[in-house]
Amino acid sequence: MESVVGIDIGGTKTKIGLVDKNGKAIKKSTFRTKEHPDWKAYMQQIKLHIETLKEKAGTELDIKGIGVGAPNANYYTGTIEYAPNLPWKGVIPLAKELKELYDLPVAVTNDANAAAIGEAMYGNAKEMKNFIVITLGTGLGSGIMVEGNLVNGFDGFAGELGHVTVKEGGRICGTGRRGCLEAYVSSTGLKRSIMYLLADSIEDSIFRNIAFNDLHGEDITQAAEEGDPIAIKAYALTGEVLGKALANFVAFSQPEAIFLLGGLANAGKWIFEPTMRHMEENLMKIYQGKVKLLPSGMLEKDAAILGAAALIWQEIGEMNTVLG
Amino acid sequence: MESVVGIDIGGTKTKIGLVDKNGKAIKKSTFRTKEHPDWKAYMQQIKLHIETLKEKAGTELDIKGIGVGAPNANYYTGTIEYAPNLPWKGVIPLAKELKELYDLPVAVTNDANAAAIGEAMYGNAKEMKNFIVITLGTGLGSGIMVEGNLVNGFDGFAGELGHVTVKEGGRICGTGRRGCLEAYVSSTGLKRSIMYLLADSIEDSIFRNIAFNDLHGEDITQAAEEGDPIAIKAYALTGEVLGKALANFVAFSQPEAIFLLGGLANAGKWIFEPTMRHMEENLMKIYQGKVKLLPSGMLEKDAAILGAAALIWQEIGEMNTVLG
Repeated sequence: MESVVGIDIGGTKTKIGLVDKNGKAIKKSTFRTKEHPDWKAYMQQIKLHIETLKEKAGTELDIKGIGVGAPNANYYTGTIEYAPNLPWKGVIPLAKELKELYDLPVAVTNDANAAAIGEAMYGNAKEMKNFIVITLGTGLGSGIMVEGNLVNGFDGFAGELGHVTVKEGGRICGTGRRGCLEAYVSSTGLKRSIMYLLADSIEDSIFRNIAFNDLHGEDITQAAEEGDPIAIKAYALTGEVLGKALANFVAFSQPEAIFLLGGLANAGKWIFEPTMRHMEENLMKIYQGKVKLLPSGMLEKDAAILGAAALIWQEIGEMNTVLG
Repeated sequence: MESVVGIDIGGTKTKIGLVDKNGKAIKKSTFRTKEHPDWKAYMQQIKLHIETLKEKAGTELDIKGIGVGAPNANYYTGTIEYAPNLPWKGVIPLAKELKELYDLPVAVTNDANAAAIGEAMYGNAKEMKNFIVITLGTGLGSGIMVEGNLVNGFDGFAGELGHVTVKEGGRICGTGRRGCLEAYVSSTGLKRSIMYLLADSIEDSIFRNIAFNDLHGEDITQAAEEGDPIAIKAYALTGEVLGKALANFVAFSQPEAIFLLGGLANAGKWIFEPTMRHMEENLMKIYQGKVKLLPSGMLEKDAAILGAAALIWQEIGEMNTVLG
């Protein structure tokens, strides 16, 4: 049976799966990324998991290639470069070393780009050629599709929409810049907005009793459901900043849809409603009523693996009918 | 000899040329657009000019197609839609009627997109696959190339970078929106900045003696050359707003170069220097030092015709080696 290996390298977890052409994860496993601060040992751990998965699959697998999604990964060079949330520093020759372990085609891209390819193959963008995926995790990542092709840019670093400036002199960001979108719109951005609102208002809130480092996105959603005014305002602010930014992105590539993925997207109406309203209000007339704001069509627990798998299926030319 | 017709429909002038594959305008002519408020009469005027050019060419021409660049023109539908600066209202079936006059392939796109295709075929972007063209005229237009393909968007209206919001609650724009880039960065935007600076400062300036409607870009450049403080500051402000906006565009598609075309670009260092400095200062580290800011490689007087001609050469598949 033909299959590929999809690997998602995250700051916390590494997820590995054997995936067939229909986007079914035949077998999958997970281990903690940070337990392997030595890169060579990490690569051996990857190999161990792939071999174990192959055994567990219990059927003869014809593995066609390996796809990897990772933060700060570069499609052209196959490297991970200066990823602040990963344990290995500098430039990591990921594709090269995977090819040394397995004599197979390897393709690497950043995690949000992999999510965009996965959405096109297995998710809600199957019929779409122009769309944008926004991943809302600790930071804000993005993958941009234009005419069925991922926008990689001149040397592979296109699509860093988390670092578009949305407020001059605004909140500082991990890159040292000020006013970046992800400083407002991400799970961290949402927590910062809670702090801002606790400072700005005198309203009571359960969050007056919770320290910044103890805040979690799901708790903020639950508090909003229960009517906590600070939680409700934090989501409204997040959606306002995101909606206005999306209106600018539409003027760039006029996507058919924008997908919101990741933890913050699970807040459902709390994030989708204000985002949609502020996007529409800020669109030029020629764009109004045309751009959909959608959740992912992939099961969240498998999305990252599926995206990485879709990348390599596309690369080896087995899925070109899907992406045109 | 194989050639195409390139037509540039502008609010003031219509330019028509017979163009060979090497980008040489064999013959060309111009007439005033506004003298033909009746669309049918305008089309007859187009035909008359094409026939006259063919006669003047004096050699047997094998005309392969017609390319048109026009404001608010849509590539997919071949129409001009609600163009505020043209005499014909509503939706104009431009491609359809040209095909009725001449049984030839016709391709239509907006003027900035045509400029981008022209730059790729005949200008300074011959070796580039990822670049952005910014046209700085009465307004700000843009054409975006990704992997050698023009970004058209879901229904043909991508690349309206003049209407990206750069200042919340900022200057009002012709679209009714506030804070649009073109309200700051265009020949009109530059004039508005002169007014702003005359209000904001108490410095003397020759512009204290000139009415808004009598201001012209070239005069502002000359005043800057002569040390007029308001003229110098107006260009500095324009470059600052443009440079910061370009830094955001780079985070989207990471172009190899951004081209500045049109009247305001003729101000040379007055616009290029502050734009480049503010762009670099606002780029993420992974982009710094990589993005070129360049003037057009096309002769300005022929650029619009060449862009329209390049569009149809590309469309009929005669130039696919150039754009890959």
